[in-house]
Amino acid sequence: MKVVVLAGGVGGAKLADGIARILPPEDVTIIVNTGDDFEHLGLTICPDLDTVMYRLAGMANDETGWGRAGESWRTIDAVAALGGPDWFRLGDLDLATHLVRTNKLRAGESLTAVTQHLCQKLGIQVSVLPMSDQPAPTKIQSNDTIHPFQTWFVQEKWQPPVTKVVLPEDVRATRSVIRAFETADLVLIAPSNPFVSIDPIFNVYPIAALLEDLPQAVIAVSPIVGGQAVKGPAAKMMQELDLPHTSRAVAEYYGERIDGFVYDVQDAGSCDNLEVETRCLDTMMVTEADRVRLAQEVMQFAEEMLSN
Amino acid sequence: MKVVVLAGGVGGAKLADGIARILPPEDVTIIVNTGDDFEHLGLTICPDLDTVMYRLAGMANDETGWGRAGESWRTIDAVAALGGPDWFRLGDLDLATHLVRTNKLRAGESLTAVTQHLCQKLGIQVSVLPMSDQPAPTKIQSNDTIHPFQTWFVQEKWQPPVTKVVLPEDVRATRSVIRAFETADLVLIAPSNPFVSIDPIFNVYPIAALLEDLPQAVIAVSPIVGGQAVKGPAAKMMQELDLPHTSRAVAEYYGERIDGFVYDVQDAGSCDNLEVETRCLDTMMVTEADRVRLAQEVMQFAEEMLSN
Repeated sequence: MKVVVLAGGVGGAKLADGIARILPPEDVTIIVNTGDDFEHLGLTICPDLDTVMYRLAGMANDETGWGRAGESWRTIDAVAALGGPDWFRLGDLDLATHLVRTNKLRAGESLTAVTQHLCQKLGIQVSVLPMSDQPAPTKIQSNDTIHPFQTWFVQEKWQPPVTKVVLPEDVRATRSVIRAFETADLVLIAPSNPFVSIDPIFNVYPIAALLEDLPQAVIAVSPIVGGQAVKGPAAKMMQELDLPHTSRAVAEYYGERIDGFVYDVQDAGSCDNLEVETRCLDTMMVTEADRVRLAQEVMQFAEEMLSN
Repeated sequence: MKVVVLAGGVGGAKLADGIARILPPEDVTIIVNTGDDFEHLGLTICPDLDTVMYRLAGMANDETGWGRAGESWRTIDAVAALGGPDWFRLGDLDLATHLVRTNKLRAGESLTAVTQHLCQKLGIQVSVLPMSDQPAPTKIQSNDTIHPFQTWFVQEKWQPPVTKVVLPEDVRATRSVIRAFETADLVLIAPSNPFVSIDPIFNVYPIAALLEDLPQAVIAVSPIVGGQAVKGPAAKMMQELDLPHTSRAVAEYYGERIDGFVYDVQDAGSCDNLEVETRCLDTMMVTEADRVRLAQEVMQFAEEMLSN
């Protein structure tokens, strides 16, 4: 079964890793949100791509969920001493990724090609694709202020209330992304933030239309557990956007885009009578074994759905 | 006495530091070669400016002569692991300088302004000026091949023989540089490589004309000691350019540009009957005390010259 995983950062990376550990690599494509990407200190930084790559390469920092294990901070501390910005904490090891990526982008390579290069060097065998090769910056409107995403997310610690998520117009998918959708049997929406991780992917033309038109099953895994986001601002955003901060509301938000929905055992009984098939699973992924188990159970759900 | 020091890298930085330690900071301007500057890994790297700044800030690496003391190499090793170039060894601390500089240049600041900012943050009180705000890349012709400077100097370890040093046309000095020359009583040419550290400064319009027209004394300190360069390719280049690799040949190379010449005690007697005034001194600068002593002795020579 050929699987496409739509992923944002930490949660998406974890499910992607589980899937990558149980399926043949040629059957797995991870399509990653690049709406968080930004230029900082002269570098092109792609936080979600890096989180996914580091996780798949087994070099993720398990404490933070982002960045590399065994990280150090000599350069960014020296940047601060020189009066440079240090609100975005670039680790010494992580910096290497940004330097190599930026250098290759400046030389004219596409983000898709650069990501492929980095994955190859990191020993990643599944296909990891940025959702687009064009810049596609997500912005956060908070009342009268429009924040660049990382300003809101990191510098402001996602505290300014979200009035609207502003996605760019006219962003196009790459051929690789379109081909992945066209050949997929199953699309998994990872437990990532629906508004700032997954919507930016749907916003890339023609991804939403492909999902609608093509016959694959689409299964989303809820990022909300017990009314809270496992990590990050998803639940807070739901409240600010006048949605209940529940798994059920996530399923309803995805609406006709999905055919199946996975939600956590902590919310057992909360997703009855939805218009999609549902499966109640332990979705918490703390260890590698958790990631593998959840991936197996999600795949079993998918196989049952597809055989009906 | 207002002093301008023309400096390249290691030797120039050492004499500049000696001068900075004995004169009031408002009387000292260091004009630094930027012909070695290059874009690498998406960063604007200014090796001679950095060598001078780190030395003046008391954070120079005494073992290498370049870079920062207590340096580490985590990022560049990770760059190599990702297939990026590591022939130019960027240290973790040093990287901060390149990141802050590149970021400010991209934001539209001049190299002069960025250097002033960095010096302020590093606690440097004398004025450090790049010779120009324009890129002014030195190239090295070796038979039929023209090498970018750092390719020849670092990647090729200055081994390809030098047929010609190729300097760019139409590079202009900044107002700050011109004003420094116009108000100087003394110009010191530091013991830097005449061909690739000092000639690039003379090549910046109208520096050569200013030196010729203005009444200041110009004193050069020889970078050659006992027929060898203290550091770097100066002696090798002299041979390849069909010059004797001697202090005397350095004085003759500078010719009418200089009024006084300082050479090392190891070469005592070798610079008699030159058309400029000479002073034989111990020019080796291993310790801070050496730098101060040589600066004092050079200044004494200058005062004697100027009082005649």
